[in-house]
Amino acid sequence: MDKPYLRKLSNPPLENPILVVGLPGFGNVGRIAAHLLVKFFQAKPFAELYSPSFPDYISITSKGIAHLPKYDFYYAPMEKNNLIIMSGEIQPSFDDVVAHYSVCNEVLNFAESLGCKFIVTMGGVPITEDKTQVFIAATSNRLATEFMEKGAVIYSKGRIVGGTGLTLALAKERKLDGVCLLGTTMGFKADKGAGFLVFKFLMKALGKEIKEGLRENNALESIK
Amino acid sequence: MDKPYLRKLSNPPLENPILVVGLPGFGNVGRIAAHLLVKFFQAKPFAELYSPSFPDYISITSKGIAHLPKYDFYYAPMEKNNLIIMSGEIQPSFDDVVAHYSVCNEVLNFAESLGCKFIVTMGGVPITEDKTQVFIAATSNRLATEFMEKGAVIYSKGRIVGGTGLTLALAKERKLDGVCLLGTTMGFKADKGAGFLVFKFLMKALGKEIKEGLRENNALESIK
Amino acid sequence: MDKPYLRKLSNPPLENPILVVGLPGFGNVGRIAAHLLVKFFQAKPFAELYSPSFPDYISITSKGIAHLPKYDFYYAPMEKNNLIIMSGEIQPSFDDVVAHYSVCNEVLNFAESLGCKFIVTMGGVPITEDKTQVFIAATSNRLATEFMEKGAVIYSKGRIVGGTGLTLALAKERKLDGVCLLGTTMGFKADKGAGFLVFKFLMKALGKEIKEGLRENNALESIK
Amino acid sequence: MDKPYLRKLSNPPLENPILVVGLPGFGNVGRIAAHLLVKFFQAKPFAELYSPSFPDYISITSKGIAHLPKYDFYYAPMEKNNLIIMSGEIQPSFDDVVAHYSVCNEVLNFAESLGCKFIVTMGGVPITEDKTQVFIAATSNRLATEFMEKGAVIYSKGRIVGGTGLTLALAKERKLDGVCLLGTTMGFKADKGAGFLVFKFLMKALGKEIKEGLRENNALESIK
Repeated sequence: MDKPYLRKLSNPPLENPILVVGLPGFGNVGRIAAHLLVKFFQAKPFAELYSPSFPDYISITSKGIAHLPKYDFYYAPMEKNNLIIMSGEIQPSFDDVVAHYSVCNEVLNFAESLGCKFIVTMGGVPITEDKTQVFIAATSNRLATEFMEKGAVIYSKGRIVGGTGLTLALAKERKLDGVCLLGTTMGFKADKGAGFLVFKFLMKALGKEIKEGLRENNALESIK
Repeated sequence: MDKPYLRKLSNPPLENPILVVGLPGFGNVGRIAAHLLVKFFQAKPFAELYSPSFPDYISITSKGIAHLPKYDFYYAPMEKNNLIIMSGEIQPSFDDVVAHYSVCNEVLNFAESLGCKFIVTMGGVPITEDKTQVFIAATSNRLATEFMEKGAVIYSKGRIVGGTGLTLALAKERKLDGVCLLGTTMGFKADKGAGFLVFKFLMKALGKEIKEGLRENNALESIK
Repeated sequence: MDKPYLRKLSNPPLENPILVVGLPGFGNVGRIAAHLLVKFFQAKPFAELYSPSFPDYISITSKGIAHLPKYDFYYAPMEKNNLIIMSGEIQPSFDDVVAHYSVCNEVLNFAESLGCKFIVTMGGVPITEDKTQVFIAATSNRLATEFMEKGAVIYSKGRIVGGTGLTLALAKERKLDGVCLLGTTMGFKADKGAGFLVFKFLMKALGKEIKEGLRENNALESIK
Repeated sequence: MDKPYLRKLSNPPLENPILVVGLPGFGNVGRIAAHLLVKFFQAKPFAELYSPSFPDYISITSKGIAHLPKYDFYYAPMEKNNLIIMSGEIQPSFDDVVAHYSVCNEVLNFAESLGCKFIVTMGGVPITEDKTQVFIAATSNRLATEFMEKGAVIYSKGRIVGGTGLTLALAKERKLDGVCLLGTTMGFKADKGAGFLVFKFLMKALGKEIKEGLRENNALESIK
């Protein structure tokens, strides 16, 4: 293995799928939001991405089984668009810029091969004063405006680091549409509230109103 | 994208063009000088260079649009030689030496393909005591002397880091002519004065006397 | 030499060999355990692995002879399964993740070419309170349970860094069986006791009961 | 330029040449010794080695001419064996291990293409108490003993970092003969005394007794 490779576990029927990416980062917001989506839709894993640029440690399951670091792809059927949810415990090292490009491109290759034309990436944005909101960056003015009308704030002149940003900008290079949703977070620790906020915002954008209460608590409690 | 690539936006008519490079660095002198040239000549972008070695963050425009880090090439028509002005927000990481060579060579490949035979790079040189001057390094004795006669000081036994230096030395390897203009700067913060000094010196060398006053202020004010 | 390469010194008769890997790391536990195996079986070196990713210093023998950093493969005949013991003074740099994958894959290529179907990696795990035990991670539930019954503790939700972990997880990708034995250690200095513990545990698992006393002391004393 | 490349300036007549390498490092001992050899023999440059792994700054001559970092090869005719002296201002970064292997191999490829069968590398070894001596590491027992009889001390169980060590150990891999001479030095600053010691030792080994006094002073004074 000298470059990223993808292993398919099954071939779910996918029509007009949307790729939703939630990777570790500030407050782990993206990863938590992805986790909530997986729980909510009871999404099933159907593919894994490995890369020699992922960290050189392995993780052990609760039953003692060793496995390489990887990104997992889950499949969630919906009425209109199916969702492909991608998450993982890791990202390539911040130093290894070329690896970031390489892995993000591999993700987009796979998404395009599945007929994906729209990408959502989710992450956190560190703030110093407590102000809960969702920022938006997009591949076009139309999309930025559309999500702004749904309540997001334009992430004007900001920067987005790692796969959360690169996947979006590389998608734009491929003439794909896409948005990045960033939940504000004050800490570097896992921020479940910010993760839920981004999850909820995306669900609403997808036409799924999340009822506060039971569902929220269930979903949040299930996060380890 | 596993190596630098260039995207042309248009094919401006170029005759005997001079490539002028201003990248971020000490006091951001080079980038500011390039910015002033673009403003002065109302130069138009006509090409972009992307590289997987550029930093792994993306930038968002004021309207929320995501874009990859890149170098921009602008086209400025002049009486004698057309100018190609290249600038960017970023450089490859200081650690990634091979990337620097690779990106600089890509820039020179492009310049040569456009018929370019002369290169100017612009940058800053940190000093501890306040003494405003422009240092010169060149690809030949003749050029060093010529610019010295125009008021620059030989950058004797100095070192030039990053693309500002490499582009010049790699140009020399290709038997191209070129000079590097370094404005003295005391800080690591953006030094508009030093940027203007280098801009003005280059303009004079190109036969354009900059009148102090109106133009200077206008140009400087336009720098964000 | 721009990638790992292997040099065979001899072709020992090997039947159903088990690869046992002990590399430097926490408390040098893995390397010490490997050293004890080599001493105990009077194992002979039969192959060497070199890599341009190993550290850029060379070592000098007591007689002044220079040699490149390398991994050594030793051959130990046993009644049932022959052992291939691999150790070395070094590992690739922690930064160079791709090199780790590359070197571990080269090791597994070699092991598979020799008919190896089972891998043991040995290492240390840092603890803050003094509790002597051997942790286990495995390629399957069956193996994890089997070694747990022999006295090891499941390394539940742990992480294993460097070649000790990667070799195991990459072996699993190749459908090989394998376990990782981790001896607890409190220090970063060479921990002979922890090394001996892992050695003894492995010997017992291989059907060789180590008698405390003479052998232990001899073996330990021989460690430099 | 995506890998090291060599440029020949001339084709001097070389018979049984010995390659002598003196690179920057502890106390700059190796580089100073190489410089003394060049001065003593009035050796002429005949080849240059460039590499994209060399540092990303360029150097400017006293007359303002820019040039890429490089290794220089000089040619010195002697009665018996001609000398090829190689030196440079730089080495690849300590981090970039693969680059070190790549550059050292390029040097050895060139040396072998010129008929070279014997390699000398020169460097410094840091010590804490002031004891002036020359250490020796070699590709064989015979050579270690031979140089020990000439007054050098076996560098028993030592380590040699960078090109000074790697060139020797890679030469041994190619079945070339060679030695490394290390002068003791107490500082990280340029240590002219240690450089002279190594130079003098090598000259004696080559059958050239250096007369203390005039020559020594001249040679030392000429070091910038």
